[in-house]
Amino acid sequence: MNQKILASGNVQIQRFFNLDNRAYEQGALPAKTKELLGLVASMVLRCDDCITYHVVRCVEEGVADPEFFEAFNVALIVGGSITIPHLRRAVERLEECRQTAAS
Amino acid sequence: MNQKILASGNVQIQRFFNLDNRAYEQGALPAKTKELLGLVASMVLRCDDCITYHVVRCVEEGVADPEFFEAFNVALIVGGSITIPHLRRAVERLEECRQTAAS
Amino acid sequence: MNQKILASGNVQIQRFFNLDNRAYEQGALPAKTKELLGLVASMVLRCDDCITYHVVRCVEEGVADPEFFEAFNVALIVGGSITIPHLRRAVERLEECRQTAAS
Amino acid sequence: MNQKILASGNVQIQRFFNLDNRAYEQGALPAKTKELLGLVASMVLRCDDCITYHVVRCVEEGVADPEFFEAFNVALIVGGSITIPHLRRAVERLEECRQTAAS
Amino acid sequence: MNQKILASGNVQIQRFFNLDNRAYEQGALPAKTKELLGLVASMVLRCDDCITYHVVRCVEEGVADPEFFEAFNVALIVGGSITIPHLRRAVERLEECRQTAAS
Amino acid sequence: MNQKILASGNVQIQRFFNLDNRAYEQGALPAKTKELLGLVASMVLRCDDCITYHVVRCVEEGVADPEFFEAFNVALIVGGSITIPHLRRAVERLEECRQTAAS
Repeated sequence: MNQKILASGNVQIQRFFNLDNRAYEQGALPAKTKELLGLVASMVLRCDDCITYHVVRCVEEGVADPEFFEAFNVALIVGGSITIPHLRRAVERLEECRQTAAS
Repeated sequence: MNQKILASGNVQIQRFFNLDNRAYEQGALPAKTKELLGLVASMVLRCDDCITYHVVRCVEEGVADPEFFEAFNVALIVGGSITIPHLRRAVERLEECRQTAAS
Repeated sequence: MNQKILASGNVQIQRFFNLDNRAYEQGALPAKTKELLGLVASMVLRCDDCITYHVVRCVEEGVADPEFFEAFNVALIVGGSITIPHLRRAVERLEECRQTAAS
Repeated sequence: MNQKILASGNVQIQRFFNLDNRAYEQGALPAKTKELLGLVASMVLRCDDCITYHVVRCVEEGVADPEFFEAFNVALIVGGSITIPHLRRAVERLEECRQTAAS
Repeated sequence: MNQKILASGNVQIQRFFNLDNRAYEQGALPAKTKELLGLVASMVLRCDDCITYHVVRCVEEGVADPEFFEAFNVALIVGGSITIPHLRRAVERLEECRQTAAS
Repeated sequence: MNQKILASGNVQIQRFFNLDNRAYEQGALPAKTKELLGLVASMVLRCDDCITYHVVRCVEEGVADPEFFEAFNVALIVGGSITIPHLRRAVERLEECRQTAAS
């Protein structure tokens, strides 16, 4: 679907997608920290697709389970119980990533 | 005002305030990373008081200006232009912190 | 300013304002319960003007301080620490109402 | 999944879950009122899982249909038409609860 | 389900539904513009059901693809990357509408 | 303050600001329609600074009062009573614009 959006000929949307990708690249802050920022932002704004994306990327950047749960806890405290269904799904995604890596 | 809230006798609110403080303490993730998580969460949820709090704490934890602006950029990309007025005020707060430290 | 909005001649906005007033009238649920619903909804959506309005109305409907703080706690748990600045202002408003009544 | 979250060893998340449960217990306000507060907060924040939970709990606390619809109306007025898809699902959940009770 | 909501006997919810329908009728602004306003509001508030409704209505009002993508771009800039999953689904809906019309 | 943000040397923030400006330029949709989209998006997301910006720009693009109030009504219906304090301030801003133009 991203291909279709980019094929629409709307140059500004293409540029936004490009900026979006680059926001998480290593810079003054490491990529791992930036992915954790993206994860917590996605949790407090309650977007499951975005959470899935950042959980996968955090795993790739080597975030360990206790680090994940501390980041989840920040999201839970800032965003409240309304984030709990998203927390559950984040933990499911994380478990799937760990199982894929183990097999 | 926090004193008055805590003096209300509502034990659960007191416990929440306690959990809130502890969420940013050093653990598996360093306090600096956790404060950055709190800052970006506050920016995408657009709460100026919370932003001010986390800017001050990030300065205390040694966050450098290029690190701040990369975190601001993640918040801007995730949260969109609706965060810009809060970004402006975050930069004002940061500048005040730097001037206080310099004088 | 409401007068000017109503004087704009937009009938649908007038009808919305009318529905808004009537939503909190006594019905199957007492007015007190409905004002508490409006208060908690305003806190989790983080609108200070709306919070002020419902704090005043809750005081008029006889909500006692321990009831207020239990409602505040529900808002705090559901909405998270991002609601704390609004909780502080709600408590300030409540205190003003109590002082006005006492004098 | 809650079991897995609690098994993660993150004590603060466990404490938050505990506070979340206790927020709706009978206190100065009856449990029925608190569940209605949770329901309306969930509707204006638009979380279907949270709405389902509080609809079920409200039914258990004896909330009658006209009371439900008055609470739904407060959520609709405060939160606007963007809550309508969630209102539809809340009504479906309520109907399922009533049918389960009838059979 | 709307039938059941309207059958609940809650007159205020019925009136809100009526106001909701009338907000998009031709007036000083053309219906096409109002449907675009509804579409962008639904995208920044991230409600897929509302987006689907307004995409269908915009197609009926003759919104062309480049117009759709400029409206999508406004939503993306204002609301940020958190709207991207909804943008993808909006483009899917639009494509389905175009294919239905072509066949 | 925008100058200082742009002077921070963060190229991605500069690019976002550029995209933000260009989103409202005349294209397939007229600038007037795009500013109305920005106005309604700002109202349902409840950002007073953004509302002020788009009210001024809408006035510049020739939006008439009945058109403004129909756009305000769409925002009110979609976003609910929680937008009313922002609606009041939008009407104040509009009135100031009209008085400035008249004098």
